[in-house]
Amino acid sequence: MTISNAVIGQSGGPTCAINATLAGVIDALAKSKKIDKIYGMINGINGILSDNLKVLNSIFDNRENLKLLKLTPSSYLGSCRFKMPDLNEETDVYEKVFDVLKKHNITYFFYIGGNDSMDTVMKLNDYSKKFNKGVTVMGIPKTIDNDLYGTDHCPGFGSAAKYVATSVAEIARDAYCYLVDSVTIVEIMGRNAGFLTAAAALARCEKLCAPDLIYLPEHPFDLINFLNDVKAKIAQRKNVIVAVSEGIKNKDGVYIAAASDIFENDKFGHAQLGGAAKTLENIVKKEIGCKCRSVEINVLQRAASHFPSKTDLDESFKIGKKAVTYAMGGVSGEMMIFKRADADNYKIEIGSMDIKLIANKEKKMPNDFINARGNDVTKAFIDYARPLIMGEEKIITKNGLPVHLVLE
Amino acid sequence: MTISNAVIGQSGGPTCAINATLAGVIDALAKSKKIDKIYGMINGINGILSDNLKVLNSIFDNRENLKLLKLTPSSYLGSCRFKMPDLNEETDVYEKVFDVLKKHNITYFFYIGGNDSMDTVMKLNDYSKKFNKGVTVMGIPKTIDNDLYGTDHCPGFGSAAKYVATSVAEIARDAYCYLVDSVTIVEIMGRNAGFLTAAAALARCEKLCAPDLIYLPEHPFDLINFLNDVKAKIAQRKNVIVAVSEGIKNKDGVYIAAASDIFENDKFGHAQLGGAAKTLENIVKKEIGCKCRSVEINVLQRAASHFPSKTDLDESFKIGKKAVTYAMGGVSGEMMIFKRADADNYKIEIGSMDIKLIANKEKKMPNDFINARGNDVTKAFIDYARPLIMGEEKIITKNGLPVHLVLE
Repeated sequence: MTISNAVIGQSGGPTCAINATLAGVIDALAKSKKIDKIYGMINGINGILSDNLKVLNSIFDNRENLKLLKLTPSSYLGSCRFKMPDLNEETDVYEKVFDVLKKHNITYFFYIGGNDSMDTVMKLNDYSKKFNKGVTVMGIPKTIDNDLYGTDHCPGFGSAAKYVATSVAEIARDAYCYLVDSVTIVEIMGRNAGFLTAAAALARCEKLCAPDLIYLPEHPFDLINFLNDVKAKIAQRKNVIVAVSEGIKNKDGVYIAAASDIFENDKFGHAQLGGAAKTLENIVKKEIGCKCRSVEINVLQRAASHFPSKTDLDESFKIGKKAVTYAMGGVSGEMMIFKRADADNYKIEIGSMDIKLIANKEKKMPNDFINARGNDVTKAFIDYARPLIMGEEKIITKNGLPVHLVLE
Repeated sequence: MTISNAVIGQSGGPTCAINATLAGVIDALAKSKKIDKIYGMINGINGILSDNLKVLNSIFDNRENLKLLKLTPSSYLGSCRFKMPDLNEETDVYEKVFDVLKKHNITYFFYIGGNDSMDTVMKLNDYSKKFNKGVTVMGIPKTIDNDLYGTDHCPGFGSAAKYVATSVAEIARDAYCYLVDSVTIVEIMGRNAGFLTAAAALARCEKLCAPDLIYLPEHPFDLINFLNDVKAKIAQRKNVIVAVSEGIKNKDGVYIAAASDIFENDKFGHAQLGGAAKTLENIVKKEIGCKCRSVEINVLQRAASHFPSKTDLDESFKIGKKAVTYAMGGVSGEMMIFKRADADNYKIEIGSMDIKLIANKEKKMPNDFINARGNDVTKAFIDYARPLIMGEEKIITKNGLPVHLVLE
């Protein structure tokens, strides 16, 4: 049996589950008899290009570190946003990559990331095949946006969804404690795909109707309809909670933050600096006149790791492990995917799919997840998303705060 | 033995521990042989004025509800911001209050709140004494700002501090994963008292230097010094994390968001809509030119209850119970306080203090908690604050989310 080395990288925006996947890959590689050294790319593909690799084996001989890694947010190895050039136009970068891989006797390449990262996986696999480099290249999904094609859902989404729904419920409790009428607009990430904003709906239960309205980038946003929706809700209850995607656009495809000057008479004094929620806050104050505040959940929705979904972290770990099994079995140029084997009694199977069917595509909320008026989600979405946020992890703390594993 | 009734109210901004105190009061009253009915004021003193009281006994015969109440954020009974008129100027309101108390045979009045609420406690106690109403009036502190005089710290602060420090650490991990130089400015609540912003420093550990800089409302904010501080930090490391209080002011006492036009050449096109962090973000971009983003932790720092400090919740419960013991023992017109009996091996004793020494006063960060340049806290602050964030609670969840107790 030939023994060689493997490399793993992380790319794109961080999530609180991308390190759980890394932990899965490391765990499986460490147990494989085919693998000697496990290298980590420092800052994704940049780590290859600058020959900045770190041997990880000894760090994770300590199983406690593997456990900590699973609970650490952001990208343990560092991330990057790097677009590989066209294979036929510029070969220098590819030669550099494969020179470094050869130098370190690396024949397995794992890349954890989103749409852009899968483009890298596809191109490196194409190059390896075209020039018989003998490198197995595998992609593993991650993204809080849940917008990768081919997989039932993405690792990282469940934990972000749980954080968003938890936070929206807490924001609602905060708003409800006063007697004064109010509108609270919560802005959630996802410029093109509305899954994470939609996840705010998971906050609803028999004791909570918030969010009362939900606006997603998949449905054209109409200001008049919005104001009418809000007025109708205020007539029903004192405190209205609205969830909006950062990416809501009007029917012409213009972001609301940019399009709002149709409501501005005093253009020169009130340039809009904020995002969608801030813009809508100003419009509600002006057009409805009630107390209104906006809350951006901001980077915390992708960085918070102190209340993750156990389902998400466990699945993220498993899909990492399985990627190694597949790669060792001869699969290359594929992305690992989740398939929902049973929707009624949530059951997931892990498989893989040709990376060409996935790279550079973007999945959006399907029509049957959004109501006709475009101001709410459907039961089909709730049924889809609920299982992904289930379960809690015991957080490892020191001095009162979660412990993160840091690469040194 | 005379048997009478008691009433409890919550007032001011919500915290994630104010219901733990409520739970303590209810628990002790339920066990007292002197008390028959336990009334809750709906929306603080408004609930008395409108005779909107709710009998709580039967709800909390179920011990599970008491446990859930302890973990529920915001004000279970609803809150208010109501300033009692001067006792000598307007007596109608006082007569109304004591008429309603008499109607329900209420002789014990408990009010959980901040500075303004303690003003209410003081005035009601004065009125009761002056006109021999025989009502015992007790105040119990709460505030995330930690700005109440007379007590070592306030219930609610520890959990907010834990949430802020946890979030700042997560925001830092998020910033660190990229190669590009960046400044992240995190805005934290506290318009006049900097305790909660200072709590960001608790995030620091041997593996984390964030936040690199901390600016508090107690120290005049100087823009030139700030820019020099940031430049010096950027020279040391790629990603700089800054914690600023929403209430930072320049030497003339003007809020930075309002004062920033000294940096604006194009006044008319760039009216500042945001707060302190957004203002500083724009200034850093313009004056230093690096990537800069601002994050407002916003209402979540007072509303988040999914990662509270166990020390805070336990103490908040105990101070509520003790308030009942004191009231039954004949104490009136006092606020319950924490005294640090042992600083080295954190130990708290609960006592009370004359409300006149507390009401309408505002505690600020003492000088020895702030460094000389006014851009950081001292070890003395860390030693003071660390014990308050210790310990975690097991969160009760359903369908993947924390369960909140809701008054029906």
